[in-house]
Amino acid sequence: MKGKKTFEDLFHDELRDILDGERQITKALPKMIKAASNPELKEILEKHLSETEGQIDRLEKIFSICEIPLRAKKCEAIQGLLEEGETLLSECEPSATCDAGIIASAQKVEHYEIATYGTLRTFAEVLDFDESAKLLQETLDEESDMDERLNSLSRTVNAEALDEFHETEA
Amino acid sequence: MKGKKTFEDLFHDELRDILDGERQITKALPKMIKAASNPELKEILEKHLSETEGQIDRLEKIFSICEIPLRAKKCEAIQGLLEEGETLLSECEPSATCDAGIIASAQKVEHYEIATYGTLRTFAEVLDFDESAKLLQETLDEESDMDERLNSLSRTVNAEALDEFHETEA
Repeated sequence: MKGKKTFEDLFHDELRDILDGERQITKALPKMIKAASNPELKEILEKHLSETEGQIDRLEKIFSICEIPLRAKKCEAIQGLLEEGETLLSECEPSATCDAGIIASAQKVEHYEIATYGTLRTFAEVLDFDESAKLLQETLDEESDMDERLNSLSRTVNAEALDEFHETEA
Repeated sequence: MKGKKTFEDLFHDELRDILDGERQITKALPKMIKAASNPELKEILEKHLSETEGQIDRLEKIFSICEIPLRAKKCEAIQGLLEEGETLLSECEPSATCDAGIIASAQKVEHYEIATYGTLRTFAEVLDFDESAKLLQETLDEESDMDERLNSLSRTVNAEALDEFHETEA
């Protein structure tokens, strides 16, 4: 309802949004793991699937601390991000090129989460929700680490994808 | 077509995706500027609108350097992000709370762009497209600066939004 939204409502809205986002991600990750060729990429994505499950547990804990019903709100942005990733998978056969695309997609998802958890952590701090702020910071650190792991792996994968490109040209 | 995508195709796909994304952003920013109450937020968003127009010019230049047709591809992710932002605007009347929501939305868009331009810049470097890599780095720097400006403004705006929240509660 126009005009009725408070700062705490914004905090709850963002929680509901990312709860749905994380649930969508747990469904999408197994497809990305299956499509990945590079063993290190598979391993990073598998680790992140289990991290994501832990992040959902943290979110559920925050809903409980805040005494609000555990209700998710459709996250259109993550849906759009994951749809773009699925289109890519449907257009590539297993290769370093496909892996490079999976990394690019996964980094977009990570950055969405970094922005959202950054906002949530800050909102929780401003609202003096210390325990929630701590839990959100833990997740934010995991998301930043995941982005860094993907960044670091992309160096090898991109070089291999370039080799594939030159083979196609030859 | 499955299996036919090369590393250079991935680069072109990302270019087409972000060209559409930037065009969508130039349409959304005026609504955010109109809805913003904080004068500094209005100013930051106005500056970013003009930056975004410059970023589109850079993208057009890269299409021309790469000798590929200037064709955008629907960016589902930015569409989802902007839809979430519009829903927020429809639920808030002008206030610091609404401004806090606008900042959160804008930071999600910035992070999408940081992830995309980061990938594009790296792909351009790997492909030895030096001039394109330079142009992409310039845009990436602008997006990171914009995120930093929003971060910094959010401190003031969140404090004001919290005051509004306490007034509602009182």
